[in-house]
Amino acid sequence: MKQPLDSAKEVANAAGDAISKTASIFTSKLIGISKGVFSPIATVNEIVKKPAPGTAPGIGHYLDKVDLDLPVRITSIDYGTDFFNQTEFETVDAAMNAPKKEGQKARWINVDGLNPKFVDQVCRHYGVHTLSAEDVLNTYQRPKMEVFDDHILIIVRQIHVQEKKLKNEQISFFLFKDTLISFQEEPGDVFGPVRKRLENPKGRFRNYQADYLFYSLIDCIVDHLFPLLESYGIALEELEEEISHHPVPSCQQRLFSMKRDLALQRRTLWPLREMIDGLYRDESGLIDESLKTFYRDVQDHTMQVIDLLETYRETASGLNDLYQSSVGNKMNEIMKVLTIMASFFIPITFVAGVYGMNFEYIPELGWHYSYYVFLGICLTVSSALAIYFWRKGWIGGDK
Amino acid sequence: MKQPLDSAKEVANAAGDAISKTASIFTSKLIGISKGVFSPIATVNEIVKKPAPGTAPGIGHYLDKVDLDLPVRITSIDYGTDFFNQTEFETVDAAMNAPKKEGQKARWINVDGLNPKFVDQVCRHYGVHTLSAEDVLNTYQRPKMEVFDDHILIIVRQIHVQEKKLKNEQISFFLFKDTLISFQEEPGDVFGPVRKRLENPKGRFRNYQADYLFYSLIDCIVDHLFPLLESYGIALEELEEEISHHPVPSCQQRLFSMKRDLALQRRTLWPLREMIDGLYRDESGLIDESLKTFYRDVQDHTMQVIDLLETYRETASGLNDLYQSSVGNKMNEIMKVLTIMASFFIPITFVAGVYGMNFEYIPELGWHYSYYVFLGICLTVSSALAIYFWRKGWIGGDK
Amino acid sequence: MKQPLDSAKEVANAAGDAISKTASIFTSKLIGISKGVFSPIATVNEIVKKPAPGTAPGIGHYLDKVDLDLPVRITSIDYGTDFFNQTEFETVDAAMNAPKKEGQKARWINVDGLNPKFVDQVCRHYGVHTLSAEDVLNTYQRPKMEVFDDHILIIVRQIHVQEKKLKNEQISFFLFKDTLISFQEEPGDVFGPVRKRLENPKGRFRNYQADYLFYSLIDCIVDHLFPLLESYGIALEELEEEISHHPVPSCQQRLFSMKRDLALQRRTLWPLREMIDGLYRDESGLIDESLKTFYRDVQDHTMQVIDLLETYRETASGLNDLYQSSVGNKMNEIMKVLTIMASFFIPITFVAGVYGMNFEYIPELGWHYSYYVFLGICLTVSSALAIYFWRKGWIGGDK
Amino acid sequence: MKQPLDSAKEVANAAGDAISKTASIFTSKLIGISKGVFSPIATVNEIVKKPAPGTAPGIGHYLDKVDLDLPVRITSIDYGTDFFNQTEFETVDAAMNAPKKEGQKARWINVDGLNPKFVDQVCRHYGVHTLSAEDVLNTYQRPKMEVFDDHILIIVRQIHVQEKKLKNEQISFFLFKDTLISFQEEPGDVFGPVRKRLENPKGRFRNYQADYLFYSLIDCIVDHLFPLLESYGIALEELEEEISHHPVPSCQQRLFSMKRDLALQRRTLWPLREMIDGLYRDESGLIDESLKTFYRDVQDHTMQVIDLLETYRETASGLNDLYQSSVGNKMNEIMKVLTIMASFFIPITFVAGVYGMNFEYIPELGWHYSYYVFLGICLTVSSALAIYFWRKGWIGGDK
Amino acid sequence: MKQPLDSAKEVANAAGDAISKTASIFTSKLIGISKGVFSPIATVNEIVKKPAPGTAPGIGHYLDKVDLDLPVRITSIDYGTDFFNQTEFETVDAAMNAPKKEGQKARWINVDGLNPKFVDQVCRHYGVHTLSAEDVLNTYQRPKMEVFDDHILIIVRQIHVQEKKLKNEQISFFLFKDTLISFQEEPGDVFGPVRKRLENPKGRFRNYQADYLFYSLIDCIVDHLFPLLESYGIALEELEEEISHHPVPSCQQRLFSMKRDLALQRRTLWPLREMIDGLYRDESGLIDESLKTFYRDVQDHTMQVIDLLETYRETASGLNDLYQSSVGNKMNEIMKVLTIMASFFIPITFVAGVYGMNFEYIPELGWHYSYYVFLGICLTVSSALAIYFWRKGWIGGDK
Repeated sequence: MKQPLDSAKEVANAAGDAISKTASIFTSKLIGISKGVFSPIATVNEIVKKPAPGTAPGIGHYLDKVDLDLPVRITSIDYGTDFFNQTEFETVDAAMNAPKKEGQKARWINVDGLNPKFVDQVCRHYGVHTLSAEDVLNTYQRPKMEVFDDHILIIVRQIHVQEKKLKNEQISFFLFKDTLISFQEEPGDVFGPVRKRLENPKGRFRNYQADYLFYSLIDCIVDHLFPLLESYGIALEELEEEISHHPVPSCQQRLFSMKRDLALQRRTLWPLREMIDGLYRDESGLIDESLKTFYRDVQDHTMQVIDLLETYRETASGLNDLYQSSVGNKMNEIMKVLTIMASFFIPITFVAGVYGMNFEYIPELGWHYSYYVFLGICLTVSSALAIYFWRKGWIGGDK
Repeated sequence: MKQPLDSAKEVANAAGDAISKTASIFTSKLIGISKGVFSPIATVNEIVKKPAPGTAPGIGHYLDKVDLDLPVRITSIDYGTDFFNQTEFETVDAAMNAPKKEGQKARWINVDGLNPKFVDQVCRHYGVHTLSAEDVLNTYQRPKMEVFDDHILIIVRQIHVQEKKLKNEQISFFLFKDTLISFQEEPGDVFGPVRKRLENPKGRFRNYQADYLFYSLIDCIVDHLFPLLESYGIALEELEEEISHHPVPSCQQRLFSMKRDLALQRRTLWPLREMIDGLYRDESGLIDESLKTFYRDVQDHTMQVIDLLETYRETASGLNDLYQSSVGNKMNEIMKVLTIMASFFIPITFVAGVYGMNFEYIPELGWHYSYYVFLGICLTVSSALAIYFWRKGWIGGDK
Repeated sequence: MKQPLDSAKEVANAAGDAISKTASIFTSKLIGISKGVFSPIATVNEIVKKPAPGTAPGIGHYLDKVDLDLPVRITSIDYGTDFFNQTEFETVDAAMNAPKKEGQKARWINVDGLNPKFVDQVCRHYGVHTLSAEDVLNTYQRPKMEVFDDHILIIVRQIHVQEKKLKNEQISFFLFKDTLISFQEEPGDVFGPVRKRLENPKGRFRNYQADYLFYSLIDCIVDHLFPLLESYGIALEELEEEISHHPVPSCQQRLFSMKRDLALQRRTLWPLREMIDGLYRDESGLIDESLKTFYRDVQDHTMQVIDLLETYRETASGLNDLYQSSVGNKMNEIMKVLTIMASFFIPITFVAGVYGMNFEYIPELGWHYSYYVFLGICLTVSSALAIYFWRKGWIGGDK
Repeated sequence: MKQPLDSAKEVANAAGDAISKTASIFTSKLIGISKGVFSPIATVNEIVKKPAPGTAPGIGHYLDKVDLDLPVRITSIDYGTDFFNQTEFETVDAAMNAPKKEGQKARWINVDGLNPKFVDQVCRHYGVHTLSAEDVLNTYQRPKMEVFDDHILIIVRQIHVQEKKLKNEQISFFLFKDTLISFQEEPGDVFGPVRKRLENPKGRFRNYQADYLFYSLIDCIVDHLFPLLESYGIALEELEEEISHHPVPSCQQRLFSMKRDLALQRRTLWPLREMIDGLYRDESGLIDESLKTFYRDVQDHTMQVIDLLETYRETASGLNDLYQSSVGNKMNEIMKVLTIMASFFIPITFVAGVYGMNFEYIPELGWHYSYYVFLGICLTVSSALAIYFWRKGWIGGDK
Repeated sequence: MKQPLDSAKEVANAAGDAISKTASIFTSKLIGISKGVFSPIATVNEIVKKPAPGTAPGIGHYLDKVDLDLPVRITSIDYGTDFFNQTEFETVDAAMNAPKKEGQKARWINVDGLNPKFVDQVCRHYGVHTLSAEDVLNTYQRPKMEVFDDHILIIVRQIHVQEKKLKNEQISFFLFKDTLISFQEEPGDVFGPVRKRLENPKGRFRNYQADYLFYSLIDCIVDHLFPLLESYGIALEELEEEISHHPVPSCQQRLFSMKRDLALQRRTLWPLREMIDGLYRDESGLIDESLKTFYRDVQDHTMQVIDLLETYRETASGLNDLYQSSVGNKMNEIMKVLTIMASFFIPITFVAGVYGMNFEYIPELGWHYSYYVFLGICLTVSSALAIYFWRKGWIGGDK
């Protein structure tokens, strides 16, 4: 096992760092309200943009417009019960046309990089709808599943931490009976452990077909949401700590960022759940009945993630109340100090003022002990006030 | 491609300008609570108004009452796989009765301007229900779809930026098997790219019938919502910036306008979504099964728009909390200054007052170093208070 | 057309007046929490009250208890394609038994005033259920529809402005195949235009049966909700104006009344919508299939009213936030004035106090230019504070 | 009619008193969070308690444990079209086994007091499920209906005012074809009028069977909710009055109690509604089809009660806003007074301090008219400030 | 009866203690946002952790990785109408293979401690799915039910108080026709009373099969939620008391913890309810129809718990409002004291200042009664202010 438990923890910590420190930058990118970005959740793909409204549907205009020499990495994995071949190809056509071995269970073609040319090749080879191809290229889709005659198109978002940075990438799958084609935006993904298990000649994995492979990948993606959510949890805990003991205005701002983040994640998670429900109930025959238990398991995990998220949303909203009332309490404390200071000195300052008057006839002025009597009065007034404030709980009582 | 990507950005910016600067005017018009306007979302059509309650249903009374010489522009487009004709007509009757070519795929009659006379001609020619005709003329409908025997009536709102002004216009479509009739309130629409694609002899467009044409127009309208939503996003981002760094009372007011705007848009978008769901599930036979994938794509785009909108609504509500607590924080800061100022000087002012008294016998008065001792006391008291405040974090700690 | 568009505007203005000026009285009546009124929405009918709990169901006990000589006005309208008769009758029995003409399309018997005796006559003549009769007499029903074998009972509320006063009246309809019987609480209704159209020998109206007549009346009632909602809109706009520019405590109170009003209207509108849905889906055969398009039109109007209402509710809730933060801003402004005044004078008052002390030895006292130096210090301190406050934006910056 | 309309009003007033004066006691009892009470809505039944977790289901353990000599009152009413017998029995067995008369329509056995022994007798006699028996004895059930082969179990709560105290009692009904058995916690109920109507030989009541009798009782219970809700309305109106004109902290507390009360009632009313829906749709054959109209009527009443309740909840929430902003307004007023007082006197006090200084050379001191000039300055400064505050609307404008 | 009613009360009190005193620790554990814990509701199981994302599904990797000598306690209970055998076994295999007696009704194998080896034995013996086995080992599942061909997997959480500490433990059941296997995390459970009842030769329990045994255990778990909820109720009552009479900032914090707790419990209770609904509607044949009444009873209890919980949530939210306005009221009180103190002394201090001026010519200075007139003025001003404040209700009126 090369990916030990500790690494999961590290991932969580790194993600927590990423979120708590750069929340507002992160979210403003996520929400996509910076100039020129149309979609709520999109890593800005510099090459392929949402086409102008009114453009012909399908990928035709991409083929005309975009430089088709974009570098991509095409990896094809063939496996059967007793073999495992991983090959790199130059074109998707080559990968698709490669001869199949006897006893081959499934072929998984993974494409890193969204080159319209290669998407088009898949379309022409398998008769995939041109709109499906466009969805693959437009990297701002809601998680969704579309069932066609001989394949299913599934689009999800893969959120993971790579080189200390949060990556939020769209992955599209075409699931055929014996082939799985996946398109990723960039190299680097969360599927390492799955590849490891495929290589392992002893595992049961190689006895299954493309539908099980696909389940393994989806499961992998969903399980990677736990460390992410975990890091939100950590950030919330820190916020709670800070709001409870040292509420500063920046708390409110971070809380706002956090709430926006959670709202955004929620928008991706609910369609994800619907999509997985769709897979579980799928009747296209592409997913074997015996695997439904596995898909139900992914469903369960998604619900756990959503439960966590909703709990965090409620917690964040509670923290807002906590902060609001901490502001009020702080104000009360400030006002108490002012009121106490003013109340102690204002009356006796007046008395001092009285005997500072220059009236010719003020009887007390000439009396020898006046000064001491005056000091006595000051003391009495102050003591009376002190008792009054103490009774009200403004001094001593509750700090 | 005459409508490059940059123009989309420009549109977004212009819309953002329009919204953030004139939000309250815009919204007060949108909400229709200015005198004499009945509907929540209506560009005030000066000619055709909602009839008084109790008036006979249908368009009969429009024909009696309204000046029927209203100028309109009637354009008819006939196309087949190998031809494309665009003609202007004087009357709708003429347009409808024009002979059809062999191999003609569809005819699209577009009417700019709501002249009851021409709507009536369509009614009589095709047997359209008089209430449908009335809906076309009353420009305050919710987006909706009504299925009849041989046609579908679809009413949507087209929101776009024209000459730096936001236009919110009602468009009604009558979709027949081989004919599409559209009524717009004014000249100028978002369908330019569709017309371009029709003119292009190489595109696949001309192989399709009226149902595909209709899909292209609806797709165009939905895609134009993205720049609009985008501009709300930009305005929200500016508001966040301002509330975070320089919250002024006008922020709250703009936020209020923004929230009202978003609430209004929401009221149009949800019925729009329902309508498109209806088209997708349509069983009238007017929309070919093979096109359902296209309608599902529009559905997806609508859901993306709604997701964006709901996210913005949550963000706006979070900004409200942010503003409220920034008001509280500002108050705290003001009070801190007052409290610090008052606390520093009130005690020592009292001491100064004491030695300003005119009692004949105050022993300290005659002592040579009294003045310096007094200054020392002032310094001590002030220092003690300074330490107290510093410990509380009122000075230095968090500015 | 005797009821021009202007009158609709007048109605809206009058209603607006009525609402904004007398909101709290209006609402406290509406909500029915004044002593002795049981129902949320009831014009206090002085004669017929909700019976005590445990009374036998049906109208039996009304017949025993209530003075049956209550004045009512019974009008019967018979019409066919080529005739129109309006007659007043002494009793409902007489109206129901009047002979029918050949070619008669429908008979509409309208009863103004809820005399149990006449309701009972309808019961006995047509076999109407005694509970239906009781519902007619108890003027606090939710809008509802009940389908029986040969008739439908529909109860709605008619809200209109009569002689500058808002009237909220219950109307009950019994719709038979060829007869429509309506019971109103008082003379005066919104059906004038319908009667006009019936009288018009040229209109198509007389070709239709009772189901179309009933549609026309319901349509009339729903359309009268627009001016009412409009007047809420105007009142909200005025409130917004006031809260934005001159927020006084009474705003909050009017807002509270407004929100309660809107909540109440909402309670009537949603069941109204359900009821009209019921009519649209009705399968009793009493409403002709060909009229369903008309009922769908009423449905649409109801949804528009509800949309408006929900938008107003959200607006009112936004105004609440606006008011709350305007209160906070006002406080901030007050505190700023206090803090600035105090901060300017407190330090220099202390200095003045110092040199008012009577110590024998204060070196500065004897120096000739002391006074001018003192004035210079005052100026310097004040300027420094002025700059500090200006930098904080408390003076000059944002007023 | 022995129960005139006035008594209903009296009941409402008494209940209003009970609620507004003792809200917090009442609610803390209702909510059942006082020590040792498990259920949210329970009159503390001192004899029969919720059994410990893990106890065997059914009433077996009650029979072992509880003193079975608890006094109960068993009344049996037999009636037919032409007779009415009310008898008291010692045991339920005796009541159940009493011979039936010819032409007997129904038998109603009412048991006041929950003695497990008698519940057990019913079980054994009619084959009632032991869990039903347990539900009868555990007095903290949600309103519910359970359909068995030959009977229906219905559990509701009867809320009424008895001897100026609010009673909230559980009633369980076993409805058989010809027998109705009801168990109440204590003597005293709201069924007086029903019994009166049964005694009346002229009424139609005696022609009906047990299902109509049961309807009458349920109707009676639902109708008794109106005065209760009414009294909440009155209490809310008083609160509104007080919050508008003289907001004191205790308002907020009473509002809190009120909201908790309403939340609790809501928890009972929604299941009640579901239960009555169940009765309306019942298909067991125990409720005659011809009576369904009556059950629909009860349904309507329940919805009216729920509408009232929901309106009150919204009103209470609006009152909360009203109170919050009244606290803010009060603060503003206090601060205005302070700021005005301080601003008027702080500057001129400084001037006075200046001329109280003991500098040897202050030129103005020796000038003859200095004093009058000083007074003039004071007047000018004060006037200027007065104009400033008046312009801001702090004095005079809106008091 | 060894578990008397008092113990239930004690349990409630202990739980109440546990919650109110250590709420924040408790909840931070519950919510699982401390480092390294992934799940919202989990007692940290030190041995078996959630596997890293991408690990092969099923329990294979547990068998490789975990020390399989974990101590567990395996107890098997066999019973029939006339016998009851409780045996401890070393391995689950031994327990499963033990011969059955004649007339045996059911076998219940309970395993305390999650040793993958024994879970695996059950899998292999009964053909249980490997994912079910994994769910048993991963102690952070939502309550759920999964139906397989010959068994049902049910996972619930058992919340109880053991040795004054709240325990929140996952229990998994495999229900076969004649066998029930349960896995608990640790020794110690709430099933004592059930075992007692099984031992009792006279009870009816032994006549039932595994489905009734399972019902008894679930019932036991649900009934143990009442004391827990009760303790929340007590803690809320204490909070209300404190907020009403002595609101301190820590109240808000405890309220926040409480709300988070309730939100968390809600997340477990709703799926629990769904699960029990599933059992009630179950059609696998594993649960006898005659037992459905029992499952409906558990359903009822769950709904009662949820009702309580939702009521507490509303109450907590109301307490938040109460606290917020108590903060505002406190501020008002503080400001009133300051304003009154300042207003009384500021004007007369000015007057004293005036006559402390050193102008050579101030006529009043030489007048003999000036001092007494001055004192009179002070008294008059103070009295006027006192009356003003008293009228405003700031002194005397409402303290």
